[in-house]
Amino acid sequence: MRALISVSDKNGVVEFAKGLEALGWEILSTGGTYKVLKENGIKALEVSEYTKSPEMFDGRVKTLHPKIHGGILHRRDIKEHVEDAKKHDIGAIDLVCVNLYPFKATIKRTDDFDEIIENIDIGGPAMVRSAAKNHASVLILTDAKDYGLTLEKLQNNSVDLEFRRYLMIKAYEHTASYDSMIANYMNDRFNGGFGESRFIAGKKVFDCRYGENPHQKGAVYEYDDFISKNFKVLKGEASFNNMTDLNSAVAIASAFGNAPAVVICKHGNPCGFAIKENLLESYKAALKCDPISAFGGVVAINGKLTKELALAMKEVFTEVIIAASVEPEALEAYSDKKRTKIFSHESEFLLGSTESFNYKAIDGGFVFQERDKVSDDEVANAKLMSKKSANEAELNDLKIAWKIAALTKSNCVAYVKNGALVAIGMGMTSRVDAARAAVAKANDMGLDLTGCALASEAFFPFRDSIDIAAKVGVKNVIQPGGSIRDDEVIAACDEHGMSLYFTGIRHFWH
Amino acid sequence: MRALISVSDKNGVVEFAKGLEALGWEILSTGGTYKVLKENGIKALEVSEYTKSPEMFDGRVKTLHPKIHGGILHRRDIKEHVEDAKKHDIGAIDLVCVNLYPFKATIKRTDDFDEIIENIDIGGPAMVRSAAKNHASVLILTDAKDYGLTLEKLQNNSVDLEFRRYLMIKAYEHTASYDSMIANYMNDRFNGGFGESRFIAGKKVFDCRYGENPHQKGAVYEYDDFISKNFKVLKGEASFNNMTDLNSAVAIASAFGNAPAVVICKHGNPCGFAIKENLLESYKAALKCDPISAFGGVVAINGKLTKELALAMKEVFTEVIIAASVEPEALEAYSDKKRTKIFSHESEFLLGSTESFNYKAIDGGFVFQERDKVSDDEVANAKLMSKKSANEAELNDLKIAWKIAALTKSNCVAYVKNGALVAIGMGMTSRVDAARAAVAKANDMGLDLTGCALASEAFFPFRDSIDIAAKVGVKNVIQPGGSIRDDEVIAACDEHGMSLYFTGIRHFWH
Repeated sequence: MRALISVSDKNGVVEFAKGLEALGWEILSTGGTYKVLKENGIKALEVSEYTKSPEMFDGRVKTLHPKIHGGILHRRDIKEHVEDAKKHDIGAIDLVCVNLYPFKATIKRTDDFDEIIENIDIGGPAMVRSAAKNHASVLILTDAKDYGLTLEKLQNNSVDLEFRRYLMIKAYEHTASYDSMIANYMNDRFNGGFGESRFIAGKKVFDCRYGENPHQKGAVYEYDDFISKNFKVLKGEASFNNMTDLNSAVAIASAFGNAPAVVICKHGNPCGFAIKENLLESYKAALKCDPISAFGGVVAINGKLTKELALAMKEVFTEVIIAASVEPEALEAYSDKKRTKIFSHESEFLLGSTESFNYKAIDGGFVFQERDKVSDDEVANAKLMSKKSANEAELNDLKIAWKIAALTKSNCVAYVKNGALVAIGMGMTSRVDAARAAVAKANDMGLDLTGCALASEAFFPFRDSIDIAAKVGVKNVIQPGGSIRDDEVIAACDEHGMSLYFTGIRHFWH
Repeated sequence: MRALISVSDKNGVVEFAKGLEALGWEILSTGGTYKVLKENGIKALEVSEYTKSPEMFDGRVKTLHPKIHGGILHRRDIKEHVEDAKKHDIGAIDLVCVNLYPFKATIKRTDDFDEIIENIDIGGPAMVRSAAKNHASVLILTDAKDYGLTLEKLQNNSVDLEFRRYLMIKAYEHTASYDSMIANYMNDRFNGGFGESRFIAGKKVFDCRYGENPHQKGAVYEYDDFISKNFKVLKGEASFNNMTDLNSAVAIASAFGNAPAVVICKHGNPCGFAIKENLLESYKAALKCDPISAFGGVVAINGKLTKELALAMKEVFTEVIIAASVEPEALEAYSDKKRTKIFSHESEFLLGSTESFNYKAIDGGFVFQERDKVSDDEVANAKLMSKKSANEAELNDLKIAWKIAALTKSNCVAYVKNGALVAIGMGMTSRVDAARAAVAKANDMGLDLTGCALASEAFFPFRDSIDIAAKVGVKNVIQPGGSIRDDEVIAACDEHGMSLYFTGIRHFWH
């Protein structure tokens, strides 16, 4: 049996090659891999010697040779193939172990285009794809994690078609992912991200018990290692809906830097938020906004879940807690609450978004866009449109309300008082309906909205929402502006003695 | 100059090769392409003759040869490379024109695994990737659409780096898309779609003016040709938000087969729906639900937009109309409405979803799931839980309400009377809030809900929403059931003399 080993990442390759050698395999290898094998006392033959064709052009051409690809590709079950191979002195290659030039590491390290181009592997993917095509006869290893299992199966003579297929699928995943990365990189570099094609390539992090509903299968995939590295399951099991819900909660909680922000979300939308002097006070204040919706919700804590906070939180059933970090005593305190899941980022503060783009599935494809960002500057630079202006504390409430409105499903109106969300309407087809629903809820909760700040992520088309706001005592309003009836809205604010700020920036999020 | 031409799709290749020949290019070719070129009087040299290495293993090994890849890959700007090439009798290949074995067409045509495997191209992608890597010196053509432009640029001597890059990016897009397709196919076939990797590969259909907001760039991508083939822009320009909004509207309108359904959506959620005797009556009934939200909305028409319907619709400002088809007279009738956009599927009925999966972006990756489907059987097979039952007309309303609730953002409650949506609440963090908001809106509209059907896409956790429903005269209720307080909800329905059906199937859609 003959193996060809040519790896960019040398982890585990010596042990693997030794294992193959012990099983009597002949080993072909190239350049750096050959050197490492030799140094470790493994008998290997250089590909250039084997093919009688020199390595050329600084290694650009090594394995692109009929003796290599014929050895991989010819079908052992077709007589003519086997005879042809014999005739042309092409020996069978029965195992290919290849991983590719580190394109990803290179683009992370440098902008130098020559170096980046040099790190596009040509020979590697060709061998991987050849071997995967002929997986019925050739084992194709592209992942060091499979070395041990493969050796074991070779030792036990238990390599079967299922295992061959498993390796084959990994191989095409490997080359698909590699070229997706190259194509996206080139489009990011030369076409601002919006090239003729776009590839969203995910590696599975875990299977969910089910998808959005029990009759749907579901799983979580990641681009790189953001989720597998940062998302730790401390208690319970993350469901599909948990992942999307907590994503919204974390987006809001992490939008306020190092502030002790606490967000309570339900179905991906906030029903509680506060920034108070500490996380415990923030949680208590956040809960007041809508304790009914908070039942079974997701709580995101931009800091440490302490025992003290955990004990306070236990009084309401929370389905998911995600905190930057979790004290062992806090986890212990929750041990009797079977249905509450606890996740952490194992960091000082929650880790917000890392992507420059986002996208949504539509029938037949997807819409793709630059990711929206909401910055502190937007409120700082907002234009005062009314006679009255907001004081510093009120401006802080406006800032909080503005960010929450920007990060909540449209149409959204958010009411914030003393650093805490006191009412919110979202996801509805009309802005005034959202305003009315929010206020009705706050009234039910017995919350006093007097003096609060109101933000709308898109302009108020009419003065109706302002009039509703005035009735419950809203004092300050922020919105993008830009309606043909802005004058009407400004007049309404002046009439009610409210301040009104225009940011000029809309934050639809549907 | 030397070109290598080896194409699976022969369209345009003869003209292209003739053009190259006229410019004095030497042409290398393989198998089928060689034959076509010869037949058309083009002088070409077979690759096997050129390399002195025979085509082997039924064509599995043809171009995987140092003379080919060295000819493509050696750097013309490095003296040692050029000398090495000379020494090994490797002539420069300056243009590679390759497209790949039709993997996609094969999997559409057959399930035969041998045939599918044979249609995984190995030599093609290797050449494409080689040439793209060395795009500074090699033109790489993977798309017949570029033949003309390339000839023109060669004739004018105007090939520049920008053009080379354009071709290079297309080349990696081509191979990335090819292997993504292979990996997804294998995972669909052997892993139920949930393999270790998942690739969402899109080809751009069009750039949008901007993304969800004016400060975001955005574009529409498709997997195959569903959008470019079926979505026709008859008037105006499709925006990013139009595409997502109309997607929801079409999903609902097309969920009722050939029925004359009309949906009015705002921000992706329905605020009007009806199935009446014809589309005109359906539209009129749909509009009554919430004419305020309908302003500036999306209307989906499951059939033909006639002049008569268009004239009726013109009385309300609609931003987007999507119809299965559009009469020229209807388009003409709208010619004075500058802001209304009209799109069509150019089909008899609207074309609903074609995918088996869907997904949502989360930080660092995406969640991926089997697509939810809502079928007529769910209502037909629903279990009667109350003393009272619904009559046939009422069951029809329950069916409509159930489908709408399933296809609207959770939490959703939909109220349907005589085939028309009369109230709807959605996207809120609590079900009872959605119920209350819906009823408040219907009261404002002066709509009489007496005798209507109510559906909830997930169970009612408490009887509160039922009590609200009873007050406005709801007579029939459908929901999945499954709450620990189902008994309370059943009792409430019996108390109010309502029918109650459990489907057992939840349709969260967040």
